[in-house]
Amino acid sequence: MRVQDLIEKKRDGGVHSRSEIAFLIGGYTRDEIPDYQMSAWLMAVFHRGMNPEETQILVEEMLHSGEVLEHKQIREPKADKHSTGGVGDKTSLVVAPAAAACGVAVPMISGRGLAHTGGTLDKLEAIPGFRTDLSLAEFRKVLKKCGLALIGQTSEIAPADRKLYALRDLTATVPCPPLICGSIMSKKLAEGIDALVLDVKFGNGAFMRDQAAARELASLLVKTGRKMGKPCVALITDMNQPLGRWVGNAVETREAIETLQGNLEGDFAFLSIELAAQMLMTARVARNLASARSQVRRSIQSGAALERFRANIEAQGGNPAVLDDLGLLPQAKHRADITSTDSGIVNRIDAAEIGRIVMDWGGGRSGLKDAIDLSVGLQIHAKLGDRVSRGHPLVTAFFNDKARFSEMERRVRAAYKLGSRRAKLQPLVREVM
Amino acid sequence: MRVQDLIEKKRDGGVHSRSEIAFLIGGYTRDEIPDYQMSAWLMAVFHRGMNPEETQILVEEMLHSGEVLEHKQIREPKADKHSTGGVGDKTSLVVAPAAAACGVAVPMISGRGLAHTGGTLDKLEAIPGFRTDLSLAEFRKVLKKCGLALIGQTSEIAPADRKLYALRDLTATVPCPPLICGSIMSKKLAEGIDALVLDVKFGNGAFMRDQAAARELASLLVKTGRKMGKPCVALITDMNQPLGRWVGNAVETREAIETLQGNLEGDFAFLSIELAAQMLMTARVARNLASARSQVRRSIQSGAALERFRANIEAQGGNPAVLDDLGLLPQAKHRADITSTDSGIVNRIDAAEIGRIVMDWGGGRSGLKDAIDLSVGLQIHAKLGDRVSRGHPLVTAFFNDKARFSEMERRVRAAYKLGSRRAKLQPLVREVM
Repeated sequence: MRVQDLIEKKRDGGVHSRSEIAFLIGGYTRDEIPDYQMSAWLMAVFHRGMNPEETQILVEEMLHSGEVLEHKQIREPKADKHSTGGVGDKTSLVVAPAAAACGVAVPMISGRGLAHTGGTLDKLEAIPGFRTDLSLAEFRKVLKKCGLALIGQTSEIAPADRKLYALRDLTATVPCPPLICGSIMSKKLAEGIDALVLDVKFGNGAFMRDQAAARELASLLVKTGRKMGKPCVALITDMNQPLGRWVGNAVETREAIETLQGNLEGDFAFLSIELAAQMLMTARVARNLASARSQVRRSIQSGAALERFRANIEAQGGNPAVLDDLGLLPQAKHRADITSTDSGIVNRIDAAEIGRIVMDWGGGRSGLKDAIDLSVGLQIHAKLGDRVSRGHPLVTAFFNDKARFSEMERRVRAAYKLGSRRAKLQPLVREVM
Repeated sequence: MRVQDLIEKKRDGGVHSRSEIAFLIGGYTRDEIPDYQMSAWLMAVFHRGMNPEETQILVEEMLHSGEVLEHKQIREPKADKHSTGGVGDKTSLVVAPAAAACGVAVPMISGRGLAHTGGTLDKLEAIPGFRTDLSLAEFRKVLKKCGLALIGQTSEIAPADRKLYALRDLTATVPCPPLICGSIMSKKLAEGIDALVLDVKFGNGAFMRDQAAARELASLLVKTGRKMGKPCVALITDMNQPLGRWVGNAVETREAIETLQGNLEGDFAFLSIELAAQMLMTARVARNLASARSQVRRSIQSGAALERFRANIEAQGGNPAVLDDLGLLPQAKHRADITSTDSGIVNRIDAAEIGRIVMDWGGGRSGLKDAIDLSVGLQIHAKLGDRVSRGHPLVTAFFNDKARFSEMERRVRAAYKLGSRRAKLQPLVREVM
């Protein structure tokens, strides 16, 4: 088999056999196929797609490029949640402890923020001392001890994806359903889970702009997971404004802790409860969705979820005192309101731009190895449908680089569109598949 | 400017500006852009194409990535011929000396055989001592001395194309009109020519299978050349059977010499005269095509063209005695007829397969650095429309590896399709643009 013949086949719309996909993924993982051939193949896949059988084989080959965990020592059903990425999305920090408190073990492998989206690992690392680089042995131990473990991808887990993801990021081949499916499912299935809940986001703050594209990806993910014997549920959710009231790293961790402390108002808490409840359903620890939701709500109101998070912070080397004193989180030096120059109803918020503003102010990275400033962030006062008056704050900015304030102020204002009439507000969760 | 943003732009069908193409081509030539990003961009171009303006900019940037020759010391108009590649195509070896004998200077930079097609350089190197690796200074001197010079691409000429061509070959991005145009025109215009004749081939032995695709490429090449101030003519020619009676390296050189010696029968001599006559026309040394054709024919019949070739062989270090004793060319150890197992009329010859048979028997290479056996080849007895009888030879094989004879015999027989009726024969030159 010659790589260029396989590239040509996909370039011309052909369908790959299992042995061809195994040859490509295995060869690339073992450094036998050079990056420049793989990237040409990825771009051919971007244009020609893969059918469901090819996609499933891709997932399997990527999954088996590394270690696939089992957690025989753990009796509880194991489930995880994965989001395709958005702005202000800190649900993992609430969902994982809440699900654990309800009897679901959560072996969660997360990512870092990239482009305009945040990443769970960065938010966790705002907790002083918190280690996300556990070995797989430590990961298992922490999971056993407190019912949840939160780490980054290790070299043993889906090494094909580690190499491919870095290459895709540099070759404009990220937004491609079969490749996204391969990446997500190979990592998630390697965690040793029994079930998976997917939060597939669409809108101006998501990687997919329209609901149809999100539905297509969600369907692919769910079908692939189910074919591999894992119950999967996908929620298609609206990402046309930041989720919750805070965007940044430490500030989002703070918002998650406040939610775990019982503040269940707003869209962020709502979505966290929905996702955790779906985890209870797919993991079969709840009879129906209504009772799953109340179990999750009770786990938060009783403090059980917060105590799970405390145990987890301790087990992963972090300082649990942060839960009692939010001032221990990294704090930005400056704060200032960014006010509206007009009066009206918020009809549009460019969520990706809000994410980029935080990133550009130091809160995100453009390369995987960039250092980030965990303290910067925006507090969102005006959400979609809110009436704002001229001179009233749209957001409060928390920042360290004063010199860029007026530029950021201009960008925040431009990210908001006001109108005279209230547009119909759409539900946050549009579909459940 | 970020490479991944430019890849994304082309991936989504965008149109590049001059500064974007300059950034990509310049950055890649200077090794600042890695192969893996360039190959993803090439595959995006394969799928999305380039408009005529982008293509012209591509040619210009590739051309100016290296040295552009001028030949101020030469009074004659300078012209060249380029073929898109076929099987049995040794026209350069006749066209260049004949055009030179008619008063056109021919500074020809050629390539080696790749895939199923032969290359002029390999055929020239069948002449003992012939050097195709002249420096540019030697190239100029030879051109001045005998009116033609035949070399391979040097590191000074269109270095962008050298890098890009090698990458395209390994990433299945060769058959793409704007990239083909960039590659051909950047090299040819760097030769310092005033005019160019293009032989754009289509059919089962060409890189383009159908006439419409060949026409599209020809139109692109001609328009690009004319926009850059160089009169260009393209002939769209049929490559549905090997050109002439021989396929191989030394055997094709032999056929070319026999043609220069005055054997003007058959399709190969016909096409050589047509191409040379078109060179005379574009270089404006003939009033009309009829007189151009007779000038070319006379240059051969008078021996003037052969004497030009003799002078060129001498100037490039080769042994000119080869012109008087064809036995000095590399000779294969074995010869054997491959006979027809049926009787009928030849309705189809898989020309690419004929090329591959010679290549697989040692006469071609699959990588640029493979050594080849210049002596092997096939003499074609049965051409399209010929009536053959069972037991009569289709070809005579000249070979060294006896062990593979029966495999090659089977393949040659399978490459021929016989029928009961004579299909209408199409003219060799279909269009002139």
